[in-house]
Amino acid sequence: MNDTIAAISTPLGEGGIAIIRISGPMAFAIADQIFISRRGKPSEFPTHTTHFGAVGCNDDHVDQVMLTVMRAPRTYTAEDVIEINCHGGLLTAKNILSLCLQYGAQHAEPGEFTKRAFLNGRIDLTQAEAVMDLIRSKTDRAQRAAVHALEGHLAVKINDARDRLLTTLAHIEAHLDFPDEDITPDTREQLLASMQSTLEFLRKLFATAHEGKILRDGIAVAIIGRPNVGKSSLMNALLGQDRSIVTSIPGTTRDTIEEIANIRGIPVRLTDTAGIRKARGTIEEVGMQRSRKALRRSMLVLYVIDSSHPFSAGDRELASHCKDKQTITVLNKIDLPRKLILPDGFIRERCVEVSAIRGDGLELLKDKIESLTLYGVGTTLSEFDVAVNERHADAIRRAIEALVGAVNEIGRNASLDLVSQQLRIGLDAIGEIVGRTATEDILNKIFSTFCIGK
Amino acid sequence: MNDTIAAISTPLGEGGIAIIRISGPMAFAIADQIFISRRGKPSEFPTHTTHFGAVGCNDDHVDQVMLTVMRAPRTYTAEDVIEINCHGGLLTAKNILSLCLQYGAQHAEPGEFTKRAFLNGRIDLTQAEAVMDLIRSKTDRAQRAAVHALEGHLAVKINDARDRLLTTLAHIEAHLDFPDEDITPDTREQLLASMQSTLEFLRKLFATAHEGKILRDGIAVAIIGRPNVGKSSLMNALLGQDRSIVTSIPGTTRDTIEEIANIRGIPVRLTDTAGIRKARGTIEEVGMQRSRKALRRSMLVLYVIDSSHPFSAGDRELASHCKDKQTITVLNKIDLPRKLILPDGFIRERCVEVSAIRGDGLELLKDKIESLTLYGVGTTLSEFDVAVNERHADAIRRAIEALVGAVNEIGRNASLDLVSQQLRIGLDAIGEIVGRTATEDILNKIFSTFCIGK
Repeated sequence: MNDTIAAISTPLGEGGIAIIRISGPMAFAIADQIFISRRGKPSEFPTHTTHFGAVGCNDDHVDQVMLTVMRAPRTYTAEDVIEINCHGGLLTAKNILSLCLQYGAQHAEPGEFTKRAFLNGRIDLTQAEAVMDLIRSKTDRAQRAAVHALEGHLAVKINDARDRLLTTLAHIEAHLDFPDEDITPDTREQLLASMQSTLEFLRKLFATAHEGKILRDGIAVAIIGRPNVGKSSLMNALLGQDRSIVTSIPGTTRDTIEEIANIRGIPVRLTDTAGIRKARGTIEEVGMQRSRKALRRSMLVLYVIDSSHPFSAGDRELASHCKDKQTITVLNKIDLPRKLILPDGFIRERCVEVSAIRGDGLELLKDKIESLTLYGVGTTLSEFDVAVNERHADAIRRAIEALVGAVNEIGRNASLDLVSQQLRIGLDAIGEIVGRTATEDILNKIFSTFCIGK
Repeated sequence: MNDTIAAISTPLGEGGIAIIRISGPMAFAIADQIFISRRGKPSEFPTHTTHFGAVGCNDDHVDQVMLTVMRAPRTYTAEDVIEINCHGGLLTAKNILSLCLQYGAQHAEPGEFTKRAFLNGRIDLTQAEAVMDLIRSKTDRAQRAAVHALEGHLAVKINDARDRLLTTLAHIEAHLDFPDEDITPDTREQLLASMQSTLEFLRKLFATAHEGKILRDGIAVAIIGRPNVGKSSLMNALLGQDRSIVTSIPGTTRDTIEEIANIRGIPVRLTDTAGIRKARGTIEEVGMQRSRKALRRSMLVLYVIDSSHPFSAGDRELASHCKDKQTITVLNKIDLPRKLILPDGFIRERCVEVSAIRGDGLELLKDKIESLTLYGVGTTLSEFDVAVNERHADAIRRAIEALVGAVNEIGRNASLDLVSQQLRIGLDAIGEIVGRTATEDILNKIFSTFCIGK
């Protein structure tokens, strides 16, 4: 923390502007050494001002830049911060960073700026985690949840639950200080009610973990079906206009391509099992192999049948593979005359008639995808504007367990010592979420997933 | 130019910070609509100050950002400029850009910010071109040449040549105004001397075009040789520690990989013809095919022979393919006992003995690559700190032609009218370089190669 750190904070690649960020006690001293301007030295500039100049040594200029001075504590890290906006491209930013290191800065580790913001008390751990959620968000829904967490909405909730538990604990410990004085049934009821209400709140928060996971990681959806039933068309229709914000991810094998569609704000990782270069063997065989692979990895299956053809043995075989999976049956090509008679065993509510080419039925299909994947969550963002991550969920689970323990102890009139012990375990677990009781291990785990320069 | 433009100015991808830039008469009005801060409205902030706040509509915040206000004319475009630093990743920056467009900004075309800087007279065309040279530079040498051009070193030279020509022209036209008065032999000598000196200067500048092209585009070098002579080792040795700043470019076929090595500041695109997955046919055959392909596209060939083996028929065959190419013969594996007897026909100065694995002889090889590729240029950056590009070279060539014409006219005592005409052609050509006489076509051609947001 006594070090001054520096890193390139913009993505690598060709772009107009790159940013080098320096934070720490020597930030201004380093900037004074490498910034050349008629307007003076960075250490003399007022805070939160931006200045044109060159970066370099003597007359050897690395680039013309804009330098922004931000004095502690009103900065991202709560330390002295210098930001240098130089021309984009890899080399210029690298050379400026090298100069910073040469004059005494340390290269920042992944997430080190945000870690300092946390260690200096400017943000809590949920806000720190929200930074990377925000950067990695694939849909507006995920982005909005991250911004809410960044603005402290989750922290407020957690701190609120913590305060309630602290009050309860203080109450109980007051009684522990006077062991002779018995706890009255009234007081007992009050304590129970307070703990029950906190429990209910924590359970609600815990329930957002499912949505949190989906918003962060997306869901894997496999589109399977016989050749020529329109799998590719369906995939393209679901990717739709949002294709521009979609990322292609090479599949585990070179035979599959994953594309991320934004369906009702859910990042849906669609696996294309169609339209792939033909290998040896019959098309049917290869298709089956691929479908099985995609199937194994999926949370949801879109099982596509051609409604303009009779139900075939191939359709039946594929259907049998979907048995153990959450499945939506997509009856495609409803723009053509219907020849399909769906055999028994298909659940009406899980079937959607679409024309992938004309676009009919797509909205209904998206509704089904949304409701099936978020089904049973109980809370959604519309109610609760944040969604916890796995780390939060784990801590909440432990807090709930402890709290349930405490409630039971009180219920069976056990010693208040035991109750207090359980409450402390719960408090510690909740404290981990915002970082009050976070260990170095937890911090390392969180910040190692960050990108450099953040 | 009356439009207000906006774009994301950082590369797309995962990174800590993204920048949205807005420029034009409505920049502040748009920022006022989308920036939420207790500290007030962007239009009220002093110029060149940075402010923390949120971007969004009402309570729907897209992100927490730092917003920088820069008032015309002391800005990149010489217009009012707003820069918003938001969290990185694709979505947040896209959403903020969308808000800007919603409130009346136009999406900037590639290079439009720099084009406005040029049209508003803040920079000339050589400086505008230097911006992209800088962003795309692959080696420090290229980067430095670009920074020099960006700082106006080339413009100064061009304007100097232009001023000299203008003086000569004024002199001649003064005589044209008094056609009865004959030009004296002394005056004629003076005019000739002045034109000759400008010519010499332009020729020197023209000679930097070769280096300019090499620095911008790099040179293609093919490493060829029989299997197991150490082509891959040589490639790795040449890439060396600089590999970290190297970009892999998929070759024209999936069988070759190009890597960019930084050799004495020259971006050298090395084509790996070795270590590639075996296809059908003998290894020898496949190797030959690949070598031929790489050979065709190369400016320089590194022809590798194993000095620990006798010269073979395969070596001889490959040598015959190098005949029409600039070639350096690399005698590899000098760490092993020598068994090679080099046949007649190899030029001593074009042979280098190396041990790719131990590193022996590599510096000598790099020297040879540098001197062979920059050979005969006459000027290098150490003399002339800028290197012109193809557009400049073409204009200079036309200026030289016109000037040679003018010198000839004067030499054969032709009418001063003809001399003046030639000088005007030369002046126009030189004016094109800095953009005094640039057509819309030239501008479009230049700025269309820019990236978005610059």
